[in-house]
Amino acid sequence: MKKIAVFTSGGDAPGMNACIRAVVRTAIYHGIEVYGINYGYEGMMKGNIKRMQSHSVSNIIQRGGTILKSARSEDFRSAEGRRIAYSNLQAQGIEGLVAIGGDGTFTGAKRFHEEFGIPIVGCPGTIDNDIFGTDYTIGFDTAVNTALEAIDKIRDTAAAHDRIFFIEVMGRDSGYIAVECGIGGGAEFVLVPEQKTELQDLVKTFKNLRKSKSSSIIVVAEGDDAGSADQIMGAVKASINDPEKEFKVTTLGHIQRGGNPTARDRVLGSRCGMAAVEGLLQGQKRAMAGVVNGEVCYTDFHDCITKKKVLKDDHLKLIEILSI
Amino acid sequence: MKKIAVFTSGGDAPGMNACIRAVVRTAIYHGIEVYGINYGYEGMMKGNIKRMQSHSVSNIIQRGGTILKSARSEDFRSAEGRRIAYSNLQAQGIEGLVAIGGDGTFTGAKRFHEEFGIPIVGCPGTIDNDIFGTDYTIGFDTAVNTALEAIDKIRDTAAAHDRIFFIEVMGRDSGYIAVECGIGGGAEFVLVPEQKTELQDLVKTFKNLRKSKSSSIIVVAEGDDAGSADQIMGAVKASINDPEKEFKVTTLGHIQRGGNPTARDRVLGSRCGMAAVEGLLQGQKRAMAGVVNGEVCYTDFHDCITKKKVLKDDHLKLIEILSI
Amino acid sequence: MKKIAVFTSGGDAPGMNACIRAVVRTAIYHGIEVYGINYGYEGMMKGNIKRMQSHSVSNIIQRGGTILKSARSEDFRSAEGRRIAYSNLQAQGIEGLVAIGGDGTFTGAKRFHEEFGIPIVGCPGTIDNDIFGTDYTIGFDTAVNTALEAIDKIRDTAAAHDRIFFIEVMGRDSGYIAVECGIGGGAEFVLVPEQKTELQDLVKTFKNLRKSKSSSIIVVAEGDDAGSADQIMGAVKASINDPEKEFKVTTLGHIQRGGNPTARDRVLGSRCGMAAVEGLLQGQKRAMAGVVNGEVCYTDFHDCITKKKVLKDDHLKLIEILSI
Amino acid sequence: MKKIAVFTSGGDAPGMNACIRAVVRTAIYHGIEVYGINYGYEGMMKGNIKRMQSHSVSNIIQRGGTILKSARSEDFRSAEGRRIAYSNLQAQGIEGLVAIGGDGTFTGAKRFHEEFGIPIVGCPGTIDNDIFGTDYTIGFDTAVNTALEAIDKIRDTAAAHDRIFFIEVMGRDSGYIAVECGIGGGAEFVLVPEQKTELQDLVKTFKNLRKSKSSSIIVVAEGDDAGSADQIMGAVKASINDPEKEFKVTTLGHIQRGGNPTARDRVLGSRCGMAAVEGLLQGQKRAMAGVVNGEVCYTDFHDCITKKKVLKDDHLKLIEILSI
Repeated sequence: MKKIAVFTSGGDAPGMNACIRAVVRTAIYHGIEVYGINYGYEGMMKGNIKRMQSHSVSNIIQRGGTILKSARSEDFRSAEGRRIAYSNLQAQGIEGLVAIGGDGTFTGAKRFHEEFGIPIVGCPGTIDNDIFGTDYTIGFDTAVNTALEAIDKIRDTAAAHDRIFFIEVMGRDSGYIAVECGIGGGAEFVLVPEQKTELQDLVKTFKNLRKSKSSSIIVVAEGDDAGSADQIMGAVKASINDPEKEFKVTTLGHIQRGGNPTARDRVLGSRCGMAAVEGLLQGQKRAMAGVVNGEVCYTDFHDCITKKKVLKDDHLKLIEILSI
Repeated sequence: MKKIAVFTSGGDAPGMNACIRAVVRTAIYHGIEVYGINYGYEGMMKGNIKRMQSHSVSNIIQRGGTILKSARSEDFRSAEGRRIAYSNLQAQGIEGLVAIGGDGTFTGAKRFHEEFGIPIVGCPGTIDNDIFGTDYTIGFDTAVNTALEAIDKIRDTAAAHDRIFFIEVMGRDSGYIAVECGIGGGAEFVLVPEQKTELQDLVKTFKNLRKSKSSSIIVVAEGDDAGSADQIMGAVKASINDPEKEFKVTTLGHIQRGGNPTARDRVLGSRCGMAAVEGLLQGQKRAMAGVVNGEVCYTDFHDCITKKKVLKDDHLKLIEILSI
Repeated sequence: MKKIAVFTSGGDAPGMNACIRAVVRTAIYHGIEVYGINYGYEGMMKGNIKRMQSHSVSNIIQRGGTILKSARSEDFRSAEGRRIAYSNLQAQGIEGLVAIGGDGTFTGAKRFHEEFGIPIVGCPGTIDNDIFGTDYTIGFDTAVNTALEAIDKIRDTAAAHDRIFFIEVMGRDSGYIAVECGIGGGAEFVLVPEQKTELQDLVKTFKNLRKSKSSSIIVVAEGDDAGSADQIMGAVKASINDPEKEFKVTTLGHIQRGGNPTARDRVLGSRCGMAAVEGLLQGQKRAMAGVVNGEVCYTDFHDCITKKKVLKDDHLKLIEILSI
Repeated sequence: MKKIAVFTSGGDAPGMNACIRAVVRTAIYHGIEVYGINYGYEGMMKGNIKRMQSHSVSNIIQRGGTILKSARSEDFRSAEGRRIAYSNLQAQGIEGLVAIGGDGTFTGAKRFHEEFGIPIVGCPGTIDNDIFGTDYTIGFDTAVNTALEAIDKIRDTAAAHDRIFFIEVMGRDSGYIAVECGIGGGAEFVLVPEQKTELQDLVKTFKNLRKSKSSSIIVVAEGDDAGSADQIMGAVKASINDPEKEFKVTTLGHIQRGGNPTARDRVLGSRCGMAAVEGLLQGQKRAMAGVVNGEVCYTDFHDCITKKKVLKDDHLKLIEILSI
């Protein structure tokens, strides 16, 4: 293998730049030419491909976002789109790809490999931590810390005014962000898609909270089955029906996607990027490089996409115990 | 004057604790007994008053929120409520008050002084920076920096995806927060209540932005005359009508109220707190202690409430020039 | 078991408060009375022991330091000191202990258990990450992120002035902090006690760095075999002997011990604290509760103290590759 | 005036990039060509000058350091060096300069103007806040907040271990940084060059501190007349001579120079940058653009260099009162 290319796709995540940097420098270290594709699959179809050098990735490890830009591509879903993309790669002589993104990215990569045989190794770049085959995804730790700092700030106001705050965090269908920042933020309740949310139980427990708790934080994962934080707050407020209690909602939104990556995300991004290039060199064809139990490992895209990562039991128990 | 009391009222703001600490220690320094009233006017009516010592305010200067809690009080609007409040102060022998809050707080303080003659000095504690008689209010600098850090994070994502973000910041009827974090965040536009927002002008300028600008940040003050960030985004999106452009809205919300105060807010809170106590000792009756042009000064509550602080001309010009 | 006590000992670490909170609330959840011992073994000998309630640990999860204070105790090294300590515990009816600290703490705990039979479970609270039996120690992640943020700031100046900075980080005999913040900070070199530091190799590689690298960061673990950052800088500067190159040293020092804990440290502290109490209930006698491969597990104090945790191979390789 | 150039000189400061950005865009806004000179006077002599466009300064407002790099230049002190520098400017047709830096920078600028007549407007870029003609210098607010966050972290450890910390902060001959972060950090003492430090008074007051104060923070300005923090700690420790008390020293060092600028520094940098260009257009010849009492104003370099800014009286009083 003499030439490879790297791209980011789907939602951006902090640590993607650390990953790109590791891909570029590991390739150069092994004597391979490396190219960057801008705007993911969209750029692949448009031939938005450029040579990268070691200095192309200087001073980016600490930056959020992705210097290669990202996009979601409709056209790549068509056979014609993928054919054009492949011929652009061929024209440059690119023999292998590193795809940084989430399950949508890997679904596309798997099909692309099946159709054209080009080896692709993925890196798990998404804040949601919903990818099987890695304990953590690149960006998750930063998103949790960002959400946590926001919860710390909101707690100041909640405590000053004896208010009850419902805080909605990201995570799509996964409750990981909610659980970790719920534990870390000292939340009284955490509502996640993985557990059926029974609002009447919530209301009952709520009324039983010790009297000295005048303020409360409820963290709601955006994918919760009982609805948005706003809807849940409305239902709880109506059930509790206590004019003395003040209820507020905050949806943290896009601040969770950006920001300088934490140490953990920089190290994870760097490890996955290095492993992706070395995986291509070692003959990996369509797998994701992740870190499981502290060690780099490769998981077939098929498993990454179809298998489900589950929340840890003791995390949910922690929330119950620690809110007393 | 032998005994004074301090309280916080209205929305909490970072730096209120620094101010409380300064009031308590300055009083003790001058040999005066000092009491804390919990929950503002509400607590005054309920007799929620306790003696404070130097150590009562140890290790709080760096904390957001207010250790004295805050509340808005309906009952204090009634003559009967105020009469009860005053008799509670009399019962404790309290001869002067320090009121930390915004214009609502000072409106109440002014009336209370007029009715009962008790000297009251205020400290400008609100993130909105909308109080006449001080260049900055306690909490404003922290709120601006919090909003700015959020904008920095969102810009990562905006740049990665070539998106246009409308970001709504706090400030009630004042555009101060929006202007400062608009300049600091490199926003392309800042919409404030102090200037009539012409959406068609915005759309026109928008189309003329140089082509290399693929992403944009528009900061919207919550009190803007053209509506919420969400409404304005909808109107702009409809006018531009370009399916290639992706528009997003984020409302920063309550994170702007909390968090560890910045150096500036700790120093300002400390200065105002010291000046409030010294003002009472020097015979101030119903004035706010603020900092104008770097020096402590006292402004009659009447002026604080009725006069309007204006945005600086060069700030608005800066935004126009710097977004080219 | 009806009554237990918890204490912190040795150097403080961010996340200790999260751990104390989890110990207190898990105990209460299981119907056990819980006491806090101030100042570690020193306080145990002085009978500085007080009952804790659920609200005793409210609003501390986000704070650095330790509300139970910490100290190093000379007297506890004597048999007489330990006898007094034990009789103080007996007087209160305390039947089990949770000891939060590092290897010094566990060495004392092991001996105390051997002499008096009292069950003790430890939690790994130290920034150094040098404890066998847990993948990470409580406080390590925060320390790494603090050091990393400092490196990010210093890089601004290094880049502005084309300087070479030697940055000394903590970690005692362990290179963990240095390695993680070296990778995350994009350091050109990382010097750790686990690897023999050959200064002449360093100088040679240094001269070979590509010309476009005008500034460099060298992270030095405080326990490095070649000396302090200051000594190493002196030797390198003398060898390179280039008046055009400007060399600087920064020793990060105690900022690495404090600060609000990261999400990871709050969750780890909470998990270990819960596991410590449940370990006591399940019959653990002298073990540390840690997290290995994502799961809680217990390791005999003997192993915690005598076995050595090793750096990951791919981490050291990463630094070599990524600095090209 | 058709062509101007901008450069940074002396120690870098956060907010310099915001200032450069404002200079570039204000020039373009007024139809003027603008050039950037790398490495200050050194680059001017070497002809390291390049054209800048609006996009040259995109996405830099939030970055520490200076994209134009900085250097101290020996050669510019010679008449020959300055002659070469001027001929390089002439070759490019540059008719005016914006110099961002501190008093060394302005001393050079004043002489350069006197010798060659080229109009120069300065912007006060230094963390030390020691420039007459502006209430604050660009970078000061960020440096204070960085130092303050470090003090907050150290206080965690000081409190956990009942220690006394001497913390040395930057500021050269000025005590501004020390005073603001001393007030904001709740320091018990602040030692500054502007006040004679009597160590025996310090020791005496120290012994009189109320007993409940087990930990203390003493902030020492690097230019203090009694020596470095390390020396002062040694003297105080020897005088107090209490083996129970633990004394520690931390020198914050270069972290104070870097980091993302605060809102205040971004706004100040932007205002000064705009004012510098407009000053050149309005005929300013050798003045610094600063902000005094909230308004932009110009001060002759002679005054900037020779007049001394004094610390505010109430700041020093605050420290005395608030440490009780």
